[in-house]
Amino acid sequence: MTRRFKCIVSYDGYDYSGWQTQPNKITVQKTIENTIEKISRMKTGITGSGRTDAKVHAAGQCFHFDTEFYLDAYGWKRALNGHLPKDIHILSVEEVNQDFHARFSAEAKRYDYLISLKDQERNVFNWRYAYQATWHLDIDKMKECSRLFVGRHDYTSFCANSLETDPDQTRTIYKIEFHEEDNLVRISFYGEGFLRYMVRMLTGTMLEVGRGRITIEDVQKIMDRRDKTACRYNAKPHGLSLVKVYYDPEEVKKITEEK
Amino acid sequence: MTRRFKCIVSYDGYDYSGWQTQPNKITVQKTIENTIEKISRMKTGITGSGRTDAKVHAAGQCFHFDTEFYLDAYGWKRALNGHLPKDIHILSVEEVNQDFHARFSAEAKRYDYLISLKDQERNVFNWRYAYQATWHLDIDKMKECSRLFVGRHDYTSFCANSLETDPDQTRTIYKIEFHEEDNLVRISFYGEGFLRYMVRMLTGTMLEVGRGRITIEDVQKIMDRRDKTACRYNAKPHGLSLVKVYYDPEEVKKITEEK
Repeated sequence: MTRRFKCIVSYDGYDYSGWQTQPNKITVQKTIENTIEKISRMKTGITGSGRTDAKVHAAGQCFHFDTEFYLDAYGWKRALNGHLPKDIHILSVEEVNQDFHARFSAEAKRYDYLISLKDQERNVFNWRYAYQATWHLDIDKMKECSRLFVGRHDYTSFCANSLETDPDQTRTIYKIEFHEEDNLVRISFYGEGFLRYMVRMLTGTMLEVGRGRITIEDVQKIMDRRDKTACRYNAKPHGLSLVKVYYDPEEVKKITEEK
Repeated sequence: MTRRFKCIVSYDGYDYSGWQTQPNKITVQKTIENTIEKISRMKTGITGSGRTDAKVHAAGQCFHFDTEFYLDAYGWKRALNGHLPKDIHILSVEEVNQDFHARFSAEAKRYDYLISLKDQERNVFNWRYAYQATWHLDIDKMKECSRLFVGRHDYTSFCANSLETDPDQTRTIYKIEFHEEDNLVRISFYGEGFLRYMVRMLTGTMLEVGRGRITIEDVQKIMDRRDKTACRYNAKPHGLSLVKVYYDPEEVKKITEEK
């Protein structure tokens, strides 16, 4: 009998060439697939909620897989964590119906971008997990800029997806939150879905605003151009983490209500 | 004119072969010395408060160096941090008298050992900075064991120093504190000075007590034997961090008063 399992996984992506399996690269997906194969002796593909780029982390990526192997959810969690490397950890495994799909059932996602501020003493223990700002940043300006991005917008200027394969680059961002902690600023993006490089390009743009190289009016113009060449800013990948994939519409409602 | 500078430095030691300069190894000391040379074009040695082992971190190691180069303390801090790699950061530079010596003036030290608990979900973002326990640990038993170590004791059994070169292996530990935070236990050791491997061997011994393989009576026997072969436990280096070197006797008094 084939059973489907939904897994939530956290990983330190710094040493990986991203989520997605690629020839001759060490990726998170392939590492997990190899581990499942080692345990069950069956070739098994896994389906993630989406890709993450090279060096991008996840506090809560989600994937599913189908298997005929005898283990139950508890057994899979133990077996996977017993074999996975130290930078990948399965937080939960749950048996689900065949109609659950890690990508197509996803209702929303949260990504966090961590910035280590230049004005404070650098913390040498987070260089893998936070972008080290090399300029003073005006956080209030960055917050003001973030308001442009919230809501339903055409993000053609702020992503790498081709307009030929993805003609509709309109998405909804429910909320962008800033948290300051020690020498860090954490920017949390909640949206129904994000295009390729979108969070990094929005963050890169806010960083340019924060250091005073462009104004919020410039950002509005970039957005309005709907042009792949309009935005040249892409924040470094290692500051980014996929924090949560939402499957429950009620939870998504709460995001917008908390605004 | 030769000036002496006292520096406090933090480093992620995971990728270094320890503090001390060694041929054909990348060490923290050598990396800093090379950086000073790059800035001043003068060969300059630095003197640390003591060594740290390979993979051991520092939140606040201290060193001093003498130089005739024109920079003041502020200039040195900026120049060093501008050239040092991302895993080493100078927290402060201060011009001091020639009678200050990073090693001989040190009055006390604090080391922390971080343990990630097996019973909790593993945090993939601290594998470089915390030992990942593979057994359930009885923290109360470990605390009880730690009381044996506090005070003035002969630590011959708990260090790697040779009795020929260091005949007196008596030291004073002022305080050992436990803090539990999320899935971590942090053990802080405050002492007048620590012998080679001492904190790691004491921690390794407490870990054995915590997982129930030896009793507190066994630990007392190991201590009483004053024998280099008595203790076979040495906790992994990457959980350890040199947090602070104390130079002010008033501050040391406070440690013991807070007990």
